[in-house]
Amino acid sequence: MIYMPIALALLGLIYMLIKQSWVMRQDAGDGKMKEISDHIYEGALAFLNAEYRLLAIFVVIVAALLTLVSFIVPTTHWLIVIAFVFGAVFSAFAGNIGMKIATKTNVRTTQAARTSLPNALKISFGGGTVMGLGVAGLAVLGLTVFFIVFFHVFMGGEWTNTMDMTIVLETLAGFSLGAESIALFARVGGGIYTKAADVGADLVGKVEAGIPEDDPRNPATIADNVGDNVGDVAGMGADLFGSYVATVLAAMVLGNYVIKDMGGAVDDLFGGIGPILLPMAIAGAGIIISIIGTMLVKIKSNDAKEAQVMGALNIGNWTSIILVAVSCFGLVTWMLPETMQMNFFGEGLQDISSMRVFYATLVGLFVGAVISSVTEYYTGLGKKPILNIVQQSSTGAGTNIIAGLATGMISTFPSVLLFAGAIWASYAFAGFYGVALAASAMMATTAMQLAIDAFGPISDNAGGIAEMSEQEPIVRERTDILDSVGNTTAATGKGFAIASAALTSLALFAAYVTFTGIDGINIFKAPVLAMLFVGGMVPVVFSALAMNAVGKAAMEMVEEVRRQFRDIPGIMEGTGKPEYDKCVAISTQASLKEMMLPGLLTIGFPLVIAFVPMIFGMNNLAIAEMLGGYMAGVTVSGVLWAIFQNNAGGAWDNAKKSFEAGVEINGEMTFKGSEAHKAAVTGDTVGDPFKDTSGPSMNILIKLTCLIGLVIAPILGGHANDIGLANIEEDFSVEMTIDSEDIEAVATVDYSTIKDGEKVLKTIVFKGTKTQVENSLKTFEASLTNKAGEVEKVIEKIDITKG
Amino acid sequence: MIYMPIALALLGLIYMLIKQSWVMRQDAGDGKMKEISDHIYEGALAFLNAEYRLLAIFVVIVAALLTLVSFIVPTTHWLIVIAFVFGAVFSAFAGNIGMKIATKTNVRTTQAARTSLPNALKISFGGGTVMGLGVAGLAVLGLTVFFIVFFHVFMGGEWTNTMDMTIVLETLAGFSLGAESIALFARVGGGIYTKAADVGADLVGKVEAGIPEDDPRNPATIADNVGDNVGDVAGMGADLFGSYVATVLAAMVLGNYVIKDMGGAVDDLFGGIGPILLPMAIAGAGIIISIIGTMLVKIKSNDAKEAQVMGALNIGNWTSIILVAVSCFGLVTWMLPETMQMNFFGEGLQDISSMRVFYATLVGLFVGAVISSVTEYYTGLGKKPILNIVQQSSTGAGTNIIAGLATGMISTFPSVLLFAGAIWASYAFAGFYGVALAASAMMATTAMQLAIDAFGPISDNAGGIAEMSEQEPIVRERTDILDSVGNTTAATGKGFAIASAALTSLALFAAYVTFTGIDGINIFKAPVLAMLFVGGMVPVVFSALAMNAVGKAAMEMVEEVRRQFRDIPGIMEGTGKPEYDKCVAISTQASLKEMMLPGLLTIGFPLVIAFVPMIFGMNNLAIAEMLGGYMAGVTVSGVLWAIFQNNAGGAWDNAKKSFEAGVEINGEMTFKGSEAHKAAVTGDTVGDPFKDTSGPSMNILIKLTCLIGLVIAPILGGHANDIGLANIEEDFSVEMTIDSEDIEAVATVDYSTIKDGEKVLKTIVFKGTKTQVENSLKTFEASLTNKAGEVEKVIEKIDITKG
Repeated sequence: MIYMPIALALLGLIYMLIKQSWVMRQDAGDGKMKEISDHIYEGALAFLNAEYRLLAIFVVIVAALLTLVSFIVPTTHWLIVIAFVFGAVFSAFAGNIGMKIATKTNVRTTQAARTSLPNALKISFGGGTVMGLGVAGLAVLGLTVFFIVFFHVFMGGEWTNTMDMTIVLETLAGFSLGAESIALFARVGGGIYTKAADVGADLVGKVEAGIPEDDPRNPATIADNVGDNVGDVAGMGADLFGSYVATVLAAMVLGNYVIKDMGGAVDDLFGGIGPILLPMAIAGAGIIISIIGTMLVKIKSNDAKEAQVMGALNIGNWTSIILVAVSCFGLVTWMLPETMQMNFFGEGLQDISSMRVFYATLVGLFVGAVISSVTEYYTGLGKKPILNIVQQSSTGAGTNIIAGLATGMISTFPSVLLFAGAIWASYAFAGFYGVALAASAMMATTAMQLAIDAFGPISDNAGGIAEMSEQEPIVRERTDILDSVGNTTAATGKGFAIASAALTSLALFAAYVTFTGIDGINIFKAPVLAMLFVGGMVPVVFSALAMNAVGKAAMEMVEEVRRQFRDIPGIMEGTGKPEYDKCVAISTQASLKEMMLPGLLTIGFPLVIAFVPMIFGMNNLAIAEMLGGYMAGVTVSGVLWAIFQNNAGGAWDNAKKSFEAGVEINGEMTFKGSEAHKAAVTGDTVGDPFKDTSGPSMNILIKLTCLIGLVIAPILGGHANDIGLANIEEDFSVEMTIDSEDIEAVATVDYSTIKDGEKVLKTIVFKGTKTQVENSLKTFEASLTNKAGEVEKVIEKIDITKG
Repeated sequence: MIYMPIALALLGLIYMLIKQSWVMRQDAGDGKMKEISDHIYEGALAFLNAEYRLLAIFVVIVAALLTLVSFIVPTTHWLIVIAFVFGAVFSAFAGNIGMKIATKTNVRTTQAARTSLPNALKISFGGGTVMGLGVAGLAVLGLTVFFIVFFHVFMGGEWTNTMDMTIVLETLAGFSLGAESIALFARVGGGIYTKAADVGADLVGKVEAGIPEDDPRNPATIADNVGDNVGDVAGMGADLFGSYVATVLAAMVLGNYVIKDMGGAVDDLFGGIGPILLPMAIAGAGIIISIIGTMLVKIKSNDAKEAQVMGALNIGNWTSIILVAVSCFGLVTWMLPETMQMNFFGEGLQDISSMRVFYATLVGLFVGAVISSVTEYYTGLGKKPILNIVQQSSTGAGTNIIAGLATGMISTFPSVLLFAGAIWASYAFAGFYGVALAASAMMATTAMQLAIDAFGPISDNAGGIAEMSEQEPIVRERTDILDSVGNTTAATGKGFAIASAALTSLALFAAYVTFTGIDGINIFKAPVLAMLFVGGMVPVVFSALAMNAVGKAAMEMVEEVRRQFRDIPGIMEGTGKPEYDKCVAISTQASLKEMMLPGLLTIGFPLVIAFVPMIFGMNNLAIAEMLGGYMAGVTVSGVLWAIFQNNAGGAWDNAKKSFEAGVEINGEMTFKGSEAHKAAVTGDTVGDPFKDTSGPSMNILIKLTCLIGLVIAPILGGHANDIGLANIEEDFSVEMTIDSEDIEAVATVDYSTIKDGEKVLKTIVFKGTKTQVENSLKTFEASLTNKAGEVEKVIEKIDITKG
C-alpha cells in the first residue's frame, strides 16, 4: 500500500509522456510561425538557465547551512539536506517540463486553429495537461519516495513510535522547503520578469517608437511573450508544486499526532500508519482522477463560442472534484480506524469517527470550487463590479483607480468569510488533521487545475503568434475564443492558488505548533502580539518591494530597447535584426536581482525572530510562541493582500477589456480610444503588478514563512511534545531518554492519576540535555493540565541533576 | 487627591474660555470677509445640527439596548446608560466648541495677516488651543466626575475590593462607549462629508463650468470650506476625545488588576486606589502642561518663514513632552507603591518597581514623538519618497499611482516596528498596565497636539477667505506660510492619532481579557484563528465602503450643483445668489447616510460574534476568546491599513504640491499644468479619500471594536475573574456568592496548596446562577493552573446542585 502513490504518480508521468509526444507530433506550422515560436522557446530557456544558475548558488548556500544545523542540533538529521536538494531539483524539473511544453504547444495551437477550433482546444489543453501531470506526478513521486526511504532509515520500515515518525517527517520537511524555495524564485522572479518585459516593451515600443504591440521590430517583444510563460506557466506551476508537497507533508505530520493521541499506535491494515499514508493516497488518486478529468475536456463544433469552451473545462473540472470526493470517501473509510481519538486544545481528547474526516475533505473541495466563483464574480466581464469600474472610468483615471481598489478590497469579504468558515468547519469535524485533509482534498485536483491554468497563456501566445505571422482573421478569432476563456481561468486559478496557499499555511502552522510542543499561541502575551503586528506588516512591505522591483526592472529594459533602436542600423525598417536575447537577458537578470530583497525579507524575518532572542537567552518555548504569532500575522495579512491585489488587478484588466467590445456609459456606447478607455488603461497599468507580481507572490510568502517555521521548529522544541501522555499513562513508571548520547540532566517527577475513582501513583524520569529535559517537563506539565480532573501532579518533587 | 484631576480640568476649561473670548474680541475684518466666514460658520452649524439629530436617535436606540442589557445581565448596572449618554453629549459638546471656534478664528486670522504674521499665528494657534483644551478638559472632567460618582455609588467612596471596583469601571466604560460612538459619526461621517463636497465642487465647478476654486458662484464652495472644518477639526477632535477617554479608562481597569495581583488591596496615601488614580492624574497634569506648551508657541519677526513657524510649534510640542515625562516621574513615584506584584501570563507573579512603570510612560512619549518623524519622512515635501513619486509622475498617472501605493505600503515598516517595539518594551517594563500607561503618557499631550492640528485647517480657511475676499497678495503669502506648516502638522497629527488609537486599542484589549476572565487568546484554537481572519478583513472592507461612500455622496452633490447652475437665473453672472445651504444640506445628509453601512459593520460584527454562538449554546469563555481573536485581527489589520492609506494619501498630496514650486524631472524643471503634474493630480484624487476618509476612520474602527468588546465582556465573563487567587488563599475556607439575589447553583471545590513545603487543605464554595458558577469554576481552575507548583487540585469533588 505504501507504494501505491508511487505507482499512481508513475502512471501519471507515463500518461504525461504519451500526451507530450502526441503534442510534439502535431504540425508546428510554417517557417515564420516556427521562427517566432523558437524565439519564445529560446527566451524561456534562457530565463530558466539563468534562474537555475542562481538557484544552484542558493541551494548550495542553504544546503551548507542546513548541514551545519544538522551537526549542531541533535534532532536534525543530515538527510534533510538531501531532501532539500531533491525538493529543489524536482520543482525546477517540473517547471522545466511546463515551460518547454507550453512554448512548444503555442505554435501548434495556432496551426490547428487554421482549420479547427476543437483541435486547437485539444492541443492547447493537451499542453496544459502535460504541465499539470508533470507537476503533480513529480510532487507525489518525490514525496513518497523520500518518505519510504526515511521510513526505512529511521524506523526500519516498520512502525516503532510517534517520536521516530516525527524525525522521519521533520527530515521530509526538507523536500518541501526545497520545493518552496524554487517557488520563491519562479513566482516572485517570474512575476517581476513578466511585468518588466511587458512595461518595457510597451513604453518604448508603443509609446516612444509608435509601433504596434507584438511587432517583431521591437527587441523586447520576445521577452514580453517569454514573460507570459515565465509568470503564468512556470510561476504558477512552482507555486502549486510547493503547495501540493507542503499540504501533504503537513497532513502527514498531523496524522502522526492523531496516532499519538490514540496512544502511540493504531492497529490497521497499513502497518499502523494509515492516518499518515492517507494524504499521500488521496494525492495519488487525484492524479488518476485528473487524467480522467482532462479526457473529458473537448468540444465538437467548429463554431463553438466561449460558453462551450468554458463548459467543456467545467465538465472536466467538476467531474474531477466529484471523483475526488468519492475517492476520499473510499480512502477515508478504508484507511482510517472507524473511531479515532484527537486532542482538541482546551477540550481534551475527543472521539472522532472517520466519517468526520471525510466531511472535512468535503469542506476543502467546497472551498476550492466556491473561491473560483467568488473570484469570477469580482473580476468577470459583464459582472456588476466590472460594470461599476467601467462607469467610474468616465470621470477619469482617479475614479477608475478608486473603484478598482475598492473592488479588490470588498472582494476580501466573501473570500475571508469562506476561509474562516472552512477553518472552523474542518477543525470542528476533525481538528487540525481535518484542516490539513481539507487542504489535501482540494489540492488533489491540482493536475486538472494546472491544465486549465496553463491552457490560458498557451492560447494567449497562440494568438500572438497568429498576429505576428499574419494569419487569416478566422485564426485569430478562434485563438481569441480560447484566450478569452483563458483569461477567466487565469483569474480563477489565482483564486485556487491563494486558497490552497491559505489552507496549506494553516496546516503547516498546526504542524509547527505540534512540532515545537508549545501548548498554543497566546496573543495576550505582549511579545507574541508584537510579532503578530510585525508579521502582518511583512506582506505589505513585500508587496511594495515587488511593485517597485517591476518599476526598476522595466527601466533597465527601457534603456536597452532605446539603445538598440539607436545603435542597430535598419532596425526600424525591418532590415536590421533586433537582439532579442539581450532583452531576454536583461529581463532575466533584472528580475532575479530585484527579487533578492523581498526574498531576503521572507527568509530573514523568521530566522531573526527565532535566533536573535535565542542569543539573548530567551526561553525556547517563548520564542516558538513568538514565531507562531509572526506566522499567523503573515498568513492573515498575506491572504488579505493576495485577494485584494489579485482581484483589483483582475478587475482593472477586464474593465479595460470591456471597452474592446464597447460599453454603455451614461447611455452612450464608448469604445477603445475614448477618454474613459484611457482612464481604464491607467487602471490596468496599476493592476498589472498587482495581479501578476505582488499579488501571487503572497502565496509563496505565507507558505515559505510557515515552512521555515516548521524546519526551525525542532530546534526550538527539542522534541518536547513527543512525550505524549498517552504513552506514559500505560505504565506505573516510565523512563524517557530523549537523546541517549548526550545526557546532561535527569528529572524525576512523581505524579498520580485518578483511574476509576482510585488514585494511582506514578513516576516519570526524563534524561537528555538540560534544555531538552526542561522543555519536556514543561510539555509534560501542560499535557497533565489538559487532563485536569483525572491527574493530580506533585511537581515539587522534580529534580534536575547531572546524569 | 481624587478631585485633583477635576480641578485641573476646570482650570483648563477656564483658560479655554479666556482664550476663546480673546480670540472672539479680535477684529473680524470687513463686510465681504465676514460674509464668507458667516457662510462657513452656518454651514458647519448645519452639519452639526443634522449630525446631532441623527445622533440623538442613535443614542436613544443604544441607550434603550443598554438598559435592556442592564436588566437582563445582573453584573451590568443601569447607570452605564447614564454614563453612555453623557459620554456622547460631552464628545458632541467638545466637537461643537471646536467647530465654532475654528470657523470664527479663520476670518480673524485673515484680518490679522493683513498687518502681521506673528499676530496671525497667535490668533490661528489660539483658536487651536481653545479646541485642544476643550477636548482634553471635557474628557478629564467627565471621566473623573463619573468615576467619583460611581465610586461612591458602588463602593461608598472607600476601597472595598477589586470586584466592586470592576463594577465601577465597567459602568464607566459606558462613558467611553458614548464618546467613541460620536467619534464614529464625526470621523467617518465628517470624512465622507469633506471629500464629497471637495470632489463635487471641483467636478462641476472647475471641470464643467470652468470657474476657479473657491469661486463664490459655485454653490458647493461653502460646503467645501465647511468640509475642512468638519473633517479635520470636528473629526480629529472627536477621534482624540475618544482615544483620551478610552486610554485613561483602560489604564484604570488594569490598575485595578494590579491591586488584585497585590492581594486585593494596597496601602497608600490615596485610599488604596493609587494605581487606578494615576492615569487620571497624568491626564490632569497634561492639561496644565499643554497650556504651558501653547504659551511658548510664538514668533517675533513679520518676515518669518515656514521654518520659524514650525520651530515655534516644535518648541511648544517638545516642551510639553518633556514636562509630561517629568510629571510622570513625579506622579509615578508619589502615587504607586515602590514595588508592585503583577501577574505576567505564563510567568506568574513578578515584583515590579514603580520606576519600571515610569520607564513604560517614557516608551509612550517616545512613540508619540517618533511616529511624527516617520510620517513626516514618508509624506514631507523634498523627502526622498515624495521626490520618487514626482519622478514617477513623468511616465504617467499609472506609475504615479504605483509609486504612491508603494510609499504608503513601505511606510508600514518603520511604523509597525516602532509599535511592536513599544508593545514589547512597555509590557516588559510593567505588563499591560505598562502598555496602558505608555498610552496615557502619550495622550497627556493631547491638548497640545490638537492645538497644533486644528491650527492647520484654520490657516487653510484663512487663506481661502483671503482669496475669496480679494486681499493684497502679501496677506495670502502670510496665510500660505501658516497653511504650509499646517499641512505638515495635519500629516503628523494623523500619525499621532493612529499611534494613540493603536496603543489605546491594545490597552482596551488587555482590559477586555481581564474583564472576561479568560486566560489568554490562543490562536491555535481554530475558531479563534478564524475570527482573527475575519477581524483582519473588516478594516479592508470598511475602507472600501468609506471610499465608495465618498463617490456616491459626491455624485449627489454634482447633481445639485448642476441643478442650481441650470435653474437659478443669473448665477454665472454673479447676479443670482447660489443656494449654499442646499449644498451643505446635501453633503450633510449624504455623508450621514453613507456612513451607516460602515458603521453597522463596525458595531454589528462584534455583536454577531458574541451573541450568535451564545444562542447556539457555545461556552461563554470560548466566545470571549473568539471575540478577542476578532479584536486582535481588527487592530493589527486596521493599524496597517491606517498607516498605508494615510501616508499614501499624504505622499500623493505633497507630490502634487511639489509641482507648484517646480520640480526637476530628468534634468528639466517641470511645473503646474505639465503632463507630469496632471498625473500627480490623478494620484491626489485617489489619495484624498485615502487620507481624509478611509485612513483616519480606521482609528475609530479599531477603538470602537475594542470598546464594544469591553462592554460585552462582563456578559461573557460573568465576573468570573474577580475570584482572584490572591484573595482566596488567605483563608482556609472561602464562600463566594456571586449574585446574592439569584442563586441557582452551588459548587464546592476541595483543593490544597503547598505552603512552605506543607500541604494545606482548603475548600471554596461558589454560589450564583448556573452559568456564573460554571464560569467561575473554569476561571478558578485556570488561576490554579497558573500557580502550578504551589497548588494541588482535586477537581473531582466539584458538585453543582440547585441552591
